[in-house]
Amino acid sequence: MNNRITELFNIKYPIVQAGMIWCSGWRLASAASNNGILGLIGAGSMYPDVLREHIQKTKAATENPFGVNVPLLYPEINKIIDIIIEEGVKIVFTSAGNPSTWTSTLKAAGITVVHVIANEKFALKAADSGVDAIVAEGFEAGGHNGKEETTTMVLIPGIVDKVSIPVIAAGGIANGRSMAAAMALGADGVQIGSRFALSRESSAHEHFKDAIISAREGSTKLMMKDIVPVRLLENPFANRMIEMETACASKDERKEFLGRARAKKGMFEGDLENGELEIGQVSGYMNEVLPVSEIVSQIREEYNLTIQKLSKQSI
Amino acid sequence: MNNRITELFNIKYPIVQAGMIWCSGWRLASAASNNGILGLIGAGSMYPDVLREHIQKTKAATENPFGVNVPLLYPEINKIIDIIIEEGVKIVFTSAGNPSTWTSTLKAAGITVVHVIANEKFALKAADSGVDAIVAEGFEAGGHNGKEETTTMVLIPGIVDKVSIPVIAAGGIANGRSMAAAMALGADGVQIGSRFALSRESSAHEHFKDAIISAREGSTKLMMKDIVPVRLLENPFANRMIEMETACASKDERKEFLGRARAKKGMFEGDLENGELEIGQVSGYMNEVLPVSEIVSQIREEYNLTIQKLSKQSI
Repeated sequence: MNNRITELFNIKYPIVQAGMIWCSGWRLASAASNNGILGLIGAGSMYPDVLREHIQKTKAATENPFGVNVPLLYPEINKIIDIIIEEGVKIVFTSAGNPSTWTSTLKAAGITVVHVIANEKFALKAADSGVDAIVAEGFEAGGHNGKEETTTMVLIPGIVDKVSIPVIAAGGIANGRSMAAAMALGADGVQIGSRFALSRESSAHEHFKDAIISAREGSTKLMMKDIVPVRLLENPFANRMIEMETACASKDERKEFLGRARAKKGMFEGDLENGELEIGQVSGYMNEVLPVSEIVSQIREEYNLTIQKLSKQSI
Repeated sequence: MNNRITELFNIKYPIVQAGMIWCSGWRLASAASNNGILGLIGAGSMYPDVLREHIQKTKAATENPFGVNVPLLYPEINKIIDIIIEEGVKIVFTSAGNPSTWTSTLKAAGITVVHVIANEKFALKAADSGVDAIVAEGFEAGGHNGKEETTTMVLIPGIVDKVSIPVIAAGGIANGRSMAAAMALGADGVQIGSRFALSRESSAHEHFKDAIISAREGSTKLMMKDIVPVRLLENPFANRMIEMETACASKDERKEFLGRARAKKGMFEGDLENGELEIGQVSGYMNEVLPVSEIVSQIREEYNLTIQKLSKQSI
């Protein structure tokens, strides 16, 4: 099957492996690209030199297209953009910031640009800024998210009716059934995060991977809505933050408690007590670490079975 | 197409019109049943005698199967159950309460029983209590909801893997694309609320219908999580309640402000300032009042087109 997303990225299947902080290094991105989907390096947790190294290692490990996810609020954003252009990266996903700031620079360098949004307003802004596609991410997604709390089921049909560029659905997609659901809603492709955070090639700490396996339905929560909305797995840190929110602790007090580098501590260093554990609601039914090749083939198989079964259910 | 849901209820299409308070009277329920789906009377907003009248009028208006939705926390629940049995109602959807309390009584009277849940724990409890099917309702649904905030996209695959009885998906479903998505996730049928709240046959006040038409993406919010979680449309009442929540007003203070009969005031009497307006996230893209016949045929048409299109997208 070819569609607007497989053609835009020159990939085999319309699936993107999300560029997640502390999970999406060169091992994960190149494994994804080598398995016919789009691999993304997550620049959000990398110093500029580290990013350069990961780009070079990805280029060495795959001949297929790959990209870099760049949170636009990154402090050294100029350096990051320079490295991406210097290294000849062909695809950039931007998130967490205004898409109009960097899109024209990236496009002028011949780069395909995709922007991540979580509501209709920013979908329209992104389309206006000239990006080639958008990722529309629902409330159930892990990590940073929007304030509107619009779910994937509701967000996707609304957005595909309002923009003409391709839409990649994200949030709540971890298997072939949810991929089929996203495509039914009108998406041109899907971006999958959490399932790849739990892959063998993910650079997440083993303790974090174990915590994802132990997660159950209801184990994650979108919190810190007035600081920076983020979906986290319950742990002593997250529970304490929720207690402070419930008790109406001041924003300053909560920011001080949050401090810095909590995500690195939890996701990369494996501190399950004090770290931030960014993961989606689908963590409730992910029960084993698998290699990327196996994840992709399981998703494909279940997706194909699902659409075949569904095709016999006309009413 | 016949499946476990069309067979369980003896209906043509695996679609249930939700038994919503202040919207789902005999006009809506009989119109739904006359159009090949399951119509439900919403007992939650009816005095016992009013419910009896609506059951009798529905029986007079359709020869097709219909049912009654009963919130189990209803104060005069004994009277309601007696009336349902006396009037020979064949299908009951129970919600907001413990399914084990009434299921055996209803089953002994030959009634098909369905219980509404919003998380896995209660799905398993409902199955254990002997119900014939469950409605699994995601975070995006209007009105009363669960505390886990699990969305339809995530909830349905998790639940269909854990229970053997049929699962009806609810929350975020308002058109043929979202119906196809729900079926792809593994549901045996769908329950649709908000779209029918905006039908010609809905008993919602015209002002409330106008407010639904004006709603945009992000206009609803799940609030009052520590009193009774409910998704409401933004209006002066809801905004004031959110302000009180943000300012950490005490539960007693917020309960006093909430008072009683806010839903009747808003949804039935059309007081858009002071009333509670229960509606789902899909209100963001519902733009006209339509007769039930037209809603059902639009959903069917789009659903059939969607599954046909999807069947050509194997990967």
